[in-house]
Amino acid sequence: MRVLGIDPGLTRCGVGIVDSAPGRVVKLVHVDVIRSATDLPLEKRLALIHFELSDLISRFAPDAVAIERVFAQANVRTVMGTAQVSGLGLLLAAQMDIPVQTYTPSEVKASVSGNGRADKNQVTTMVTRILNLDVAPKPADAADALAIAICHSWRGTSMQRIAQAAQRINND
Amino acid sequence: MRVLGIDPGLTRCGVGIVDSAPGRVVKLVHVDVIRSATDLPLEKRLALIHFELSDLISRFAPDAVAIERVFAQANVRTVMGTAQVSGLGLLLAAQMDIPVQTYTPSEVKASVSGNGRADKNQVTTMVTRILNLDVAPKPADAADALAIAICHSWRGTSMQRIAQAAQRINND
Repeated sequence: MRVLGIDPGLTRCGVGIVDSAPGRVVKLVHVDVIRSATDLPLEKRLALIHFELSDLISRFAPDAVAIERVFAQANVRTVMGTAQVSGLGLLLAAQMDIPVQTYTPSEVKASVSGNGRADKNQVTTMVTRILNLDVAPKPADAADALAIAICHSWRGTSMQRIAQAAQRINND
Repeated sequence: MRVLGIDPGLTRCGVGIVDSAPGRVVKLVHVDVIRSATDLPLEKRLALIHFELSDLISRFAPDAVAIERVFAQANVRTVMGTAQVSGLGLLLAAQMDIPVQTYTPSEVKASVSGNGRADKNQVTTMVTRILNLDVAPKPADAADALAIAICHSWRGTSMQRIAQAAQRINND
């Protein structure tokens, strides 16, 4: 299963793609940060990010999209932009008929590090280790996007395993 | 000048189109509320609203789009959806190369009623009067969308008048 993880943001939107195989094996396919200049009008920034996300989905054809859920705890202005970018990811997934799921930051952190309150360094370290990378992905938004993709891959795998087990029981 | 006003919302998104002529004359072209069922997944709701907004812009070819700016004062969950829907309006305007402007609720209220703290009834009454309608537009989201379109039409007209005056001075 190929998963596109999105860490939504107007100035820096992290995107990470991983392929997963049975037994929690995940491999890096692509990682990047989509940037939009802060001096561009908001509508142009959204159109630019929409274009880049759309291009990415066309090129890599993910089987699923996973997006970090937005919370309103931070700066109000930032949160609005983040919500709008996450909306673009949701929109594209729906339009391209790709299953999409959102995860809270603590779900993602707990999934890759076992600790829902892990800091950015811990997440980056775990992502680097899990994907068996020589160099840590930078900036933090890139590592976060990969963490979101890994979180969904593993969840997907467990869900599949549960479904397969249920199937076996039904077949017995 | 034809203006599409959008009062963004996930459950009810007001859309109002007005044509403006010199001397603050504005005429109703179209008014509607795009609805999306609360039991649909978020991505499907956004795709549905995106489709309806896109269809509206294609059919009525507005010269400008005006969108009510989102504030984080209300319910967090609602605000996120509202931000995402306003993002769709901004995206479509940018993609279709239509100038787009956002206005705060109080700018809109002050424009149509002279009072930035006018309540929903006052706004509806003024919109009905300004557009010379026999029946008040309902629900409030529809009246709000028209108020946003009127606000931008009048602002556009004053801006044009200033630009024309400047032109005349330059030509003298």
